[in-house]
Amino acid sequence: MRVAVCQLALAVGNIEANRAAGLDAVNRACDEGADLVVLPELSDSGYVFASLAEARSLASPLSESATIAAWVSLANERDVAIAGGWCELGADGRLYNSAALVGPDGLCAVYRKLHLWDREREVFLPGDQLSPLIEIDGVRIGLAICYDLEFPELIRLLALAGVDLVVVPTNWPASAVPEGERPIEFVKAQANAATNGIWIALADRCGEERGVSWVGYSTILDPEGFPMAPPLEPDGPGMVIAEIDALRSRAKSITENNDLFADRREDVYELTVRSSSSR
Amino acid sequence: MRVAVCQLALAVGNIEANRAAGLDAVNRACDEGADLVVLPELSDSGYVFASLAEARSLASPLSESATIAAWVSLANERDVAIAGGWCELGADGRLYNSAALVGPDGLCAVYRKLHLWDREREVFLPGDQLSPLIEIDGVRIGLAICYDLEFPELIRLLALAGVDLVVVPTNWPASAVPEGERPIEFVKAQANAATNGIWIALADRCGEERGVSWVGYSTILDPEGFPMAPPLEPDGPGMVIAEIDALRSRAKSITENNDLFADRREDVYELTVRSSSSR
Repeated sequence: MRVAVCQLALAVGNIEANRAAGLDAVNRACDEGADLVVLPELSDSGYVFASLAEARSLASPLSESATIAAWVSLANERDVAIAGGWCELGADGRLYNSAALVGPDGLCAVYRKLHLWDREREVFLPGDQLSPLIEIDGVRIGLAICYDLEFPELIRLLALAGVDLVVVPTNWPASAVPEGERPIEFVKAQANAATNGIWIALADRCGEERGVSWVGYSTILDPEGFPMAPPLEPDGPGMVIAEIDALRSRAKSITENNDLFADRREDVYELTVRSSSSR
Repeated sequence: MRVAVCQLALAVGNIEANRAAGLDAVNRACDEGADLVVLPELSDSGYVFASLAEARSLASPLSESATIAAWVSLANERDVAIAGGWCELGADGRLYNSAALVGPDGLCAVYRKLHLWDREREVFLPGDQLSPLIEIDGVRIGLAICYDLEFPELIRLLALAGVDLVVVPTNWPASAVPEGERPIEFVKAQANAATNGIWIALADRCGEERGVSWVGYSTILDPEGFPMAPPLEPDGPGMVIAEIDALRSRAKSITENNDLFADRREDVYELTVRSSSSR
């Protein structure tokens, strides 16, 4: 499977232009042979809302979202899968920071961000369920969004459930990084991939929005935790495209005597999904 | 608290020379004002055993270990705490890859490695309990050994139990690292520190032993996951010494609205110590 992550410059409130930027990126990825394209978090609404009212004005229910409808249509036209974030208005009238995965035949999965960052709490309710796993071309795909990736429990549970590839729409707000170091969000993503022997495809934003700039570093990490290509600089849009192989994420054996999963000491510690949250 | 990690060149079987190298390093760290000194894994026996019989010939019970006795004596003489690995002969007649923490008044804690790497399984039994936490100068210290650090569950549980500093005697066997990348073991260590907002002090070996060379990268990581000084090159012995502050590892708040622990979704996933393993 050929995966593309698209780093985009978006602007809060410009929902049509943002959607068009996403569709344009998917088209370019398809021209490069992509089978799956990952777009950033909240890729239609933008991120730095001035108020709950502004966010609400940019939200749409799954069934009425022009963004999701356009993704489904393009996925069908180009025979591709698309994952990305949109601003969801729930049936309960509340907003969710959500991501969808669509394929040529329509919607495959929806996931609501479990771990909300900073002022997102003023706008969104968090989800209450792990991502479902969807198999496409023999690759089992799960979703996570941005700050979710900083909770190793979540990625471990997706891995134990059999995920090969976690796709991560993200908006990483930039903060100071010591000279010679990488952003710690990226380091945590690497550790998640290597710890679990899985692929991670991460699409971030670039540019600046209402005083917030972004980390960039869109990337595809291999099951050893290393980027398949240099992570993207934050100064502009771009794309990373790489071939991923589910055989590598299925092989958890790392030495003749070691296995990433079997070596876990389940007799000493226990990590479980709470039953009320499992699908 | 001033912490030193000592990267040593050791040789399997040269138990007296290895012990002397450790004591010498502790003395030098004390000359630099260290309050706590961390030595590598299996710092008296060496690592690449030719056979179980060889390992057995290099093992000693806690109460009869000349290495532990020398650490206790030096800790008293120099008013310092010392953590390091030794080859333990258990009361059950089995060998353990163990670490001890000693202070001026004697032994503080013993920990047996929970996650065994590769051919260690032919020699050692794994432990069955998390490290206890020991408070020294207001800093709560826990132990982990080498491959343990690749299981985020373990470090998370130590953090949730209140650890400020995890000291990690290690012997990281070197493997190929893509150009421009850091060894993934180091990346995982960074992620553990940042994910939990804790200090990690890691002492590795250097040089080569029976065809195995070591990663080096001895380091002290801050609660943001960044090294306090450049990690040590693997080509020779060395020391990193840095001041750590338990106030920083107690502050889990990372934005006005985010807390590394409170943000965990305990309603969705659950991580627990199995009761039979708790101390």
